Formats: sequence, C-alpha cells, structure tokens
Amino acid sequence: MKAYKDLAPSPRTIMTPGPVEVDPRVLRAMSYPILGQFDPEFTALMNETMSMLRLLFKTENEWAFPVDGTSRSGIEAVLVGIIEPGDKVLVPIYGRFGHLLTEIAGRCGAEVVKLETEWGTVFTEEEIVSAIREHQPKLVALVHGETSTGRIQPLAGIGQACRETNALFVVDAVATIGGIEVATDQLLIDAVIGGTQKCLSVPAGMAPITYNKRAEAKLQSRKRIERGLLLADGDDDPLLRPIQSNYLDLSQLQDYWSPARLNHHTEATSMLYALREGLRLVLEEGLDERFARHREHEGALIAGLEAMGLRLYGDPSCKMTVVTCIEIPAGVDGESVRSMLLDHYGIEIASSFGPLKGKIWRIGTMGYSCSKRNVLLTLGALEAVLLRHGHSLEAGKALQAAMDVYGM
Amino acid sequence: MKAYKDLAPSPRTIMTPGPVEVDPRVLRAMSYPILGQFDPEFTALMNETMSMLRLLFKTENEWAFPVDGTSRSGIEAVLVGIIEPGDKVLVPIYGRFGHLLTEIAGRCGAEVVKLETEWGTVFTEEEIVSAIREHQPKLVALVHGETSTGRIQPLAGIGQACRETNALFVVDAVATIGGIEVATDQLLIDAVIGGTQKCLSVPAGMAPITYNKRAEAKLQSRKRIERGLLLADGDDDPLLRPIQSNYLDLSQLQDYWSPARLNHHTEATSMLYALREGLRLVLEEGLDERFARHREHEGALIAGLEAMGLRLYGDPSCKMTVVTCIEIPAGVDGESVRSMLLDHYGIEIASSFGPLKGKIWRIGTMGYSCSKRNVLLTLGALEAVLLRHGHSLEAGKALQAAMDVYGM
Repeated sequence: MKAYKDLAPSPRTIMTPGPVEVDPRVLRAMSYPILGQFDPEFTALMNETMSMLRLLFKTENEWAFPVDGTSRSGIEAVLVGIIEPGDKVLVPIYGRFGHLLTEIAGRCGAEVVKLETEWGTVFTEEEIVSAIREHQPKLVALVHGETSTGRIQPLAGIGQACRETNALFVVDAVATIGGIEVATDQLLIDAVIGGTQKCLSVPAGMAPITYNKRAEAKLQSRKRIERGLLLADGDDDPLLRPIQSNYLDLSQLQDYWSPARLNHHTEATSMLYALREGLRLVLEEGLDERFARHREHEGALIAGLEAMGLRLYGDPSCKMTVVTCIEIPAGVDGESVRSMLLDHYGIEIASSFGPLKGKIWRIGTMGYSCSKRNVLLTLGALEAVLLRHGHSLEAGKALQAAMDVYGM
Repeated sequence: MKAYKDLAPSPRTIMTPGPVEVDPRVLRAMSYPILGQFDPEFTALMNETMSMLRLLFKTENEWAFPVDGTSRSGIEAVLVGIIEPGDKVLVPIYGRFGHLLTEIAGRCGAEVVKLETEWGTVFTEEEIVSAIREHQPKLVALVHGETSTGRIQPLAGIGQACRETNALFVVDAVATIGGIEVATDQLLIDAVIGGTQKCLSVPAGMAPITYNKRAEAKLQSRKRIERGLLLADGDDDPLLRPIQSNYLDLSQLQDYWSPARLNHHTEATSMLYALREGLRLVLEEGLDERFARHREHEGALIAGLEAMGLRLYGDPSCKMTVVTCIEIPAGVDGESVRSMLLDHYGIEIASSFGPLKGKIWRIGTMGYSCSKRNVLLTLGALEAVLLRHGHSLEAGKALQAAMDVYGM
C-alpha cells in the first residue's frame, strides 16, 4: 500500500480574499477533545456562539447560528427556506457572487430578475430602489462585498424600500463580516449570511447566519405545510411546496438550536469550537478597532502598490477595504508571478474570475492575515518577483511608502 | 460585555453511537496551519484523501470524496442528484434513519414506496428483492446499520436485483463505515454515504461518499439540462428538472474534485486534514484488523452487561457489532442513570428515538472509543450507578466477565 505521509503543510502567508490564515488560538481550539452534541457543556458553547454572533451581526434577532457547511450552504439555506417556487427575486449583480445568488435562487424555483452593472462599479441606492418599486419582488438578494471585483455595495435605503413593498431583504456578507461593519438591524436586513474563512479567520466549513421575525414567519408557514398536508392531499400547488432541502431546512435547524434541541444533524463540534474562538477574538479586539485595523493595512498596501507604479482596478469610491485588485501590467504573465510568489516566497495572492481572469490580481487583507508584517512581506516579494519577470519599476519605493503609512 | 471563557471541555468517555471520541492524531491534524484551496500542496492532500476513501469503501470508483457537511448532507447530495421529481424510490425501513431517507427522498420530489418491518429486526434478502421486482423503483435506498435500533441489514443479493430491474442502489453506511465492512463494488452498490463521527472517529462536519459510473451517468444527464436548455425554453417538464441544490450538486462537486478543479465552494481545510488523518489511521490499522477489534470489544461489553443481569434489545441475529442496545430495567429512570454517568463519571451513553425513547439505552463501541479501557470503565460505572438507583444486581460480576473475554 502506498504510504501516506505525516501531515506537514508548508508555512504560508495567505493574502488572498479567502481562505486566509487562521489565528493560532482558533487552530488550538480545534485540537481540544470533543464533547457529545447534547452534552450540557456543549450546548452551553452553542448558546455562547449564538450570543456572540448577535454582536457580530449587530442584531437583536433571536436566530443567529452557523449552518454546518461552507459559506454557500448558508446562502442556500436562507434562500431555499424563504423562496417558494414562482416567487419573484431581484438580484442586483456587480460581480461573480451576484451570479451565484441567481443560480441558487433559480434552483429554488424563483423567477429571477437580474439587475446588472459593469464589473468594477456598484449600484446607486436609487438604481436598486427603483428596481424594487418597478418589479415588486418578494425578495431582494444582494452581495455586500464582491471579492471577485473588490467592490462594496452601500446598503442604505434598500431595506426601507423592501419594507415598503413587503419584500424580504437578504444580504450576502460572506466577504465583509468581521472586517467591515454589517449593521443588520439598523439597515433593516431580514437575513444575513457571513463567511468564516475570510475576515473571521476561521477555517471554511461553517456559515454563520442571522434572520429576523419577518424571515422566520416565512419559514414557519412552510414548515406547517410540510407536516402532512401536502403529502396527504397529493396537492402539488407550487405555492404550497415545502422547503425542498432537509439538510438546509432552517425551520428544522432553528429547532435544533433552540432550547428544545430537536435532533437534526450532528453538530460539527470542532468547527463550532473554532467559530466560538474566532468570535471571542473579534469581540476581544472590538468591532470598531477591528474595522480600523483593516483600513490601516489596506492603506499601507495601496501606498506600496502605487509606489511600485501598479494601477488599482475598479472605481475607487466603492473599493472594499479588505480586498485590493491590481491590474496585471502589460507584458507580465500574471500566473507566473503568482506561482513564483507561492513556490519561492510561500506567499499566496489570487487571480480572479470570468471577464477578469488573467487581467487582475487580488490581494486580501483579511482577519489574521491583515497585519503589518504580512503587508510588508508581500510588497517586498511582489516587487522582487516583478523585477525578475522583466517588469520595469523603481526598486525600494514600495516598502518605503508602506513604512511611511505605518509611521515607522 | 459578558466574558466568554477560554475553551476547556471536560474529559469525556464517549460511548454513544456517535459522535465518539476523536483520535488525538486527528485532533492534532486540525491544529496545523491551513493552506489555500488551490495551493498544489492542498490539492495533493485532497487527491490522497480520495485514494484512501476508495480503499475504505472497497471500490474502484473514480469518485470518492467528502461532501462538506455532516453525514446527512452526503445523503442529500446523493439523493438530490439522482432522484428526479416523480421517480419511484423504494425505502425499506427498520428504524429511524430509514425514515430520514424517505424524508429526504420526498423533498427531492420522489414517489416514495415504504417497506416497513418491526424495529429490532431487519429484512430478509427475499423481502427486499420481491419488493424491488414488484414496485420496479428507479432507486432503492437502504440503511446499512441502524444506530436507532442497533441492527445491521445484510446487503447480499439486493444490488443484483437492482441491476436486473435497472434501479440504482444507494446505501447509507454512516454508522458502519470504518467499523464494519462496506464492500461497495462486490455488493454492486451504486452510491454509498459514510459518516465521519462514528467508526472513523473524526469530528462531524464531513460526509465521505462514493458513486459509480451508473450514478454518474444520471448526474451528468441532469447537468447538461441545467446548462441552458430548461431555462431557455421555459420548459417545466418535471422529468427534465435540474438538480435542485447548488451546494449539494454532485455534478459540480465532482468537477471541483477533478483535475479541472472548477471552483465551487471553498474546501473545509481543517476538516479535510482531519479526515485524511482519520483515514491514515484506519489504513495503518488495517480494515480487517479494525473490524475484528470492534467485534472483540463488543464481545466483552455484552459479556459484562449480561453478567450484570441486563437484557439486550432486539434480534441477536442482526445485531450490529458497533452498537449495543440494552433494555432499561423496570423501575429504573433511564435518563437519571445517563445523567449520573455523565455528570459524575464523565461517561456518555445514549438513549434512543421514537418508540424506543425511554425504553433502551444504546452503547457505542466505535472507532477510537472502542477500546478495552473504555469498555471496562463503562461497565464498572454502569454497575455502580444502577446500584445507586436501587436496581438489584450481583456486584462485581460484570467486570470479571469482561476480563474473562479479554483473557486477563
């Protein structure tokens, strides 16, 4: 039999827009022995995680818990629970992950109305609000931060427009949660999905979500139907269809996370330990302090990149602090640069998707990876690798510019 | 702000039918720093995991990989990919998890045909084969080991009957994989779902699956339809419906696990480390040796329980080696016994579900928890706690009987 060697991952400085480096305290939390899923010690940890998620999402919602899957499992859980076949769903798209929302909504049977804008920009409040009034959707699903283009969509005014038209408002905050404010209640967002492997610096494998009473009412109405009526009567009215997933059925998941602890899946113990520790780290740092840290290191990174003569991609007025997109200079093989950085410096940066593939690099400054050390090491390495690829630049300026920002 | 304390789980001897104790080597694997999902070092670990899963499932199938979710996410991924709305699905039910298969199949739009037998027993080959010939289902879904009743369903002959009627044969081996042989290819099983948190002794959060070319053909046929035809034509023929989940779409997941590495979710790095290490442990021990170990400790446990005067539940001819069900003696409060064991001995045993709730205890002997030490500690503690509950038994005999089995 082939020998499978001891695990020995090489050290990496991970400067992609996720997954990013995991805080050593989170790694250590996962190495603790597990508890049974109904052990009172474990359910206490589950409840603490819910409390901390409420603070993270800035919400008073009763329901704030992780779905046991990667980020898109949380998106699908929310959409499959709320969307009934035939429901009109409005999705403003300004990058790849908007398209993902339409893909998931479509599979839930939605009549999807797409609102598209040029990649590298976002929508004005007026554009989205007008579309809501025009199309009168049952649900508006919107990406808060698009890692594919590095843009952030302002959310003000949209929740109010949804209330006025009786639509539900769902926000994909996978890329922003823990790095940029997500003011769930203040913005009248009915359901939010966060990601673990980006600004929370917890490994992929859980999707923290929160939703309010408006969203819950929809879930509960479908739960009643599931319990016998439909199957007994053979009624196949599409408007009465139960939630089409069992694994991602939020009406069941919330029973599992409620004091009733109705059995559903077996909670992913070690990932829950990890998420809890990641949330403790966020709250110990302080949300505002954490957001400020992300802005500070973004500033140093940008100063260094521009001093190197590189051009940033996209409309600067809607740049997301936690992702910086760089136009690959003419004549430079972007993938070759990435490989040299990874193979010889142990530093990972990202390419992008679709129309931007091969045109931009993306550097994340997220969570534990968002540090002075990482920014300085990345700038120095990128400069050297660009020079090695024959790209002309004035050596040494990038790090001096970054150090200026840091006041060193 | 409320202080959330350092993680400090109490030591536990977990003798439930899952989740069970995790091997320290697996816990340590999760504490290693992560790699990016497309880092060549990480994709090599993914490929190694696939190779080891093939050995575990005893299959030559190309596709053997984990779904990023707990066990039932793997069950749903297989069923939602293979079942088209209106398909007839036969589910023989001999415990709770058979009902789960009908629940999931029903949400996929299946016309479910249930074959039920008394809990505590299983089906004969003839009963299942006759039902297949009578109902001519498109799919037969069957639980291999029912943790709710502690029974194991013999699988011989069923795969052959499915081939003869052109049905697909899906087996839920969540409870057996890694503890009892699952001979995928020899038994002509088209898709198998395993669990991590039972006999593999890896935390919950991943669902290893495998499927063959017959199952893949079904997935691929639906994938083609999804790519434009249906949506373009507005055709809503239920037989042409695409896979209704994005997160659990195996046709996309297999592209992610293929050399093409088409982007889907972000693989759950630390859980993948854990699964890989758990599989290494299984293969180092040897499958046959591991199955024999599970039989040995079951034997000692049963000898001890019977020497204590306790009665085992269910038909002994179909008892599953890795779970032992015990009738709660008359006059004893089963939940009080379980609480005293957990709170004062740090030992967890399980109750059961539905009609068996309050009637039986269930003790698992699974994976890392399946050890001489754990069996002896559990027997000694159970005896003392039963005496403390006023139950009459001859003290000391249980451990002597178990030690006899061990040849001490």
